[in-house]
Amino acid sequence: MKTLDTRDPGFPAGFDALLDMARDTTARVDGAVAEIIGRIRAEGDAALLDLTTRYDRWTPKDAAALRVTPAEIEAATASIEPGLMAALDTAATRIETFHRAQMPADITVPDPAGLTLGMRWGAVDAAGLYVPGGKAAYPSSVLMNAIPARVAGVPRVAVAVPTPDGEINPLVLAACARAGVTEVWRIGGAQAVAALAWGTASIAPVDKITGPGNAYVAEAKRQVFGRVGIDSIAGPSEVVVLADGAQAPARVAMDLLAQAEHDEAAQSILITDSRELAAAVPGAVESALATLPRAAIAGESWRRHGAVILVRDWAEGAALVDRLAPEHLQIMTAEPAALFARIRHAGAAFLGPWCPEALGDYVAGPNHVLPTGRTARFASGLSVFDFLKRTTWIAAEEAGLRATGPAAVALARAEGLDAHARSIAERIGL
Amino acid sequence: MKTLDTRDPGFPAGFDALLDMARDTTARVDGAVAEIIGRIRAEGDAALLDLTTRYDRWTPKDAAALRVTPAEIEAATASIEPGLMAALDTAATRIETFHRAQMPADITVPDPAGLTLGMRWGAVDAAGLYVPGGKAAYPSSVLMNAIPARVAGVPRVAVAVPTPDGEINPLVLAACARAGVTEVWRIGGAQAVAALAWGTASIAPVDKITGPGNAYVAEAKRQVFGRVGIDSIAGPSEVVVLADGAQAPARVAMDLLAQAEHDEAAQSILITDSRELAAAVPGAVESALATLPRAAIAGESWRRHGAVILVRDWAEGAALVDRLAPEHLQIMTAEPAALFARIRHAGAAFLGPWCPEALGDYVAGPNHVLPTGRTARFASGLSVFDFLKRTTWIAAEEAGLRATGPAAVALARAEGLDAHARSIAERIGL
Repeated sequence: MKTLDTRDPGFPAGFDALLDMARDTTARVDGAVAEIIGRIRAEGDAALLDLTTRYDRWTPKDAAALRVTPAEIEAATASIEPGLMAALDTAATRIETFHRAQMPADITVPDPAGLTLGMRWGAVDAAGLYVPGGKAAYPSSVLMNAIPARVAGVPRVAVAVPTPDGEINPLVLAACARAGVTEVWRIGGAQAVAALAWGTASIAPVDKITGPGNAYVAEAKRQVFGRVGIDSIAGPSEVVVLADGAQAPARVAMDLLAQAEHDEAAQSILITDSRELAAAVPGAVESALATLPRAAIAGESWRRHGAVILVRDWAEGAALVDRLAPEHLQIMTAEPAALFARIRHAGAAFLGPWCPEALGDYVAGPNHVLPTGRTARFASGLSVFDFLKRTTWIAAEEAGLRATGPAAVALARAEGLDAHARSIAERIGL
Repeated sequence: MKTLDTRDPGFPAGFDALLDMARDTTARVDGAVAEIIGRIRAEGDAALLDLTTRYDRWTPKDAAALRVTPAEIEAATASIEPGLMAALDTAATRIETFHRAQMPADITVPDPAGLTLGMRWGAVDAAGLYVPGGKAAYPSSVLMNAIPARVAGVPRVAVAVPTPDGEINPLVLAACARAGVTEVWRIGGAQAVAALAWGTASIAPVDKITGPGNAYVAEAKRQVFGRVGIDSIAGPSEVVVLADGAQAPARVAMDLLAQAEHDEAAQSILITDSRELAAAVPGAVESALATLPRAAIAGESWRRHGAVILVRDWAEGAALVDRLAPEHLQIMTAEPAALFARIRHAGAAFLGPWCPEALGDYVAGPNHVLPTGRTARFASGLSVFDFLKRTTWIAAEEAGLRATGPAAVALARAEGLDAHARSIAERIGL
């Protein structure tokens, strides 16, 4: 864990080191992934069965056995404890409401020259959602990926979830049912991504693939990009907490640890204008760690990547946040909205002492799939926009072409594109 | 050139062959590009000067000489013939109007449980625009890339344009001035993309890189993706023209050739319900070709990739368009808007016999940077959205956390994330 003070002469170098800290230690698996994708393209279902047997340690009897049946989904859903099912339902309802509010409207642009111009939004035909299996199987991720697709109007949403040793998390299936997923496949790894992108005899290809996964899944998404659309490749998670001297060190510590417990490569940074809070939080983190089941992971993250930064004022704090462009930004100061307004770059913001980031991970409504690793400078969280695309259109009658065509002809000729010019000029006798 | 008829038993196979036709013959340059990017990162300006001397055949005396001065831009602009300058201005004004209409609004989502939720749009801090040099230097591309960035609110827009043998197209500089570009650099190739993404002592890094380029530029964009955002990697251009029996074969032919003249790898497809038009267009194309300066390129494109498809009716035609998901879709039928409404996938549509696609390349207003190679199934044309990103936010008071927190705690516990659960539970005494 680093402690930095903007008053120290060594601060700029220390902060640069924090920015440049390599956290993503993804192994290079591009060759192995290319081979798996090649096999799925060449052999289809046969390769999928073979790779599933090898990597997931169960033997599907045929390709039809790869699909989870409606009866299995129903049984899994019925097995969930009612309180937990109600929580899942609350989350799904709230996520749906927020994403409906994101839906953009088509536009028609009036034009004094007589053309009619517009832009129309439409959904992709099919989306594929990767859901990691085993211990990292997060039902909340199913909701956060599938609901925006359904709200966008995607008719077909196929989930791929590996079932190592044949096991599947029933809450994941319940989340699929609640989120309106139309197909669930027991497949994983690069082979699942390849099957979704290219299709097999059993699995129809999709147009867009989203969802988190290990190094193989991430590299497979990279390699199928262009054939299909993908969401961004997520790196390790991170939070920046801005807190003033009025905040309780124990709460700040738990907020930092809620991020750190994800992954040893996660990063939690406290920025404060209070020397007292800066001094108290490291001890509060150590105390809280002693009580956490995931202390080994959270502790490693905090020691390797954590930081406490003392600033002179919030103008300085806001400027540091923009350089970090964090995935999550929690603001616990006297006027959180005013401070948020001064910050340009963050994936998602959580305003006020009563708004721990974890609330947004599950039930608040906005998406929890967010840009990591300083990419919030240019990238955004998952949304309905990931499952929509735009078609612009132009309608012209003779008068509109006569009014606007001559300028186009002049530019086409200047660019040496004669057929372009003539396709206009010959219509209006130019 | 292929002729297909949906009534023929061989049609499905013939159409599949058209869909699978490989047109992108990009050389593999990933190793060479990785080396160039590595040199720019390690040596900065020195590498940029060396690579510019080697590839662009002129020797900048120092890094400052890489920047085009305001006086040079002014002189270039003053040298443009007034009629052409007026055409450029018309185009710029219309492109700006259309892209302003695209600008999305922030949202605040009301919440009965007492949270406040919202989504805020913001521009990236800096955009880099690649403009190819030499004969492919298209001023229209400068407008189509730079104007959306400026409309989005990007304060800094840097153009990189190679000047082979020291030469620069004055109309490109005039377009930069008109579009509000803030910096113009005489650099090109993978080294220009690397300098924009990573920065050098002279060139500050940008957050998003857009614009067309050769195989080296495209591969460099791929390799810097993640460090910065990029637009899509454009493949060869394509048009599908839907025309009924009322259309003049010569006009249809010129519209097909306006796409074919871009590049031998371009593709022009006519879909018609008129046996007479299907029979007449190939001859009209040959006649028109004889009169075109770019006949060698356009002829090669037409022969290798062109097609005429005869359909029974427009329902069949619309279904074929969706499978092709073309970059450009020109609809010349009795009711073009009604037919367009039945089609889901196209980058941009041009409605009516008075709306040749070339009008949209220059002056209509919508962007001419569009998804190619069937990617209109999931991708969209360049727009203000390429230069904007979203930050979602949640504000909570105690009552809102008490209302929504318990469901989040239940889900966090089900996922085994104890610190997540406790960061909420300990605030509300759960």
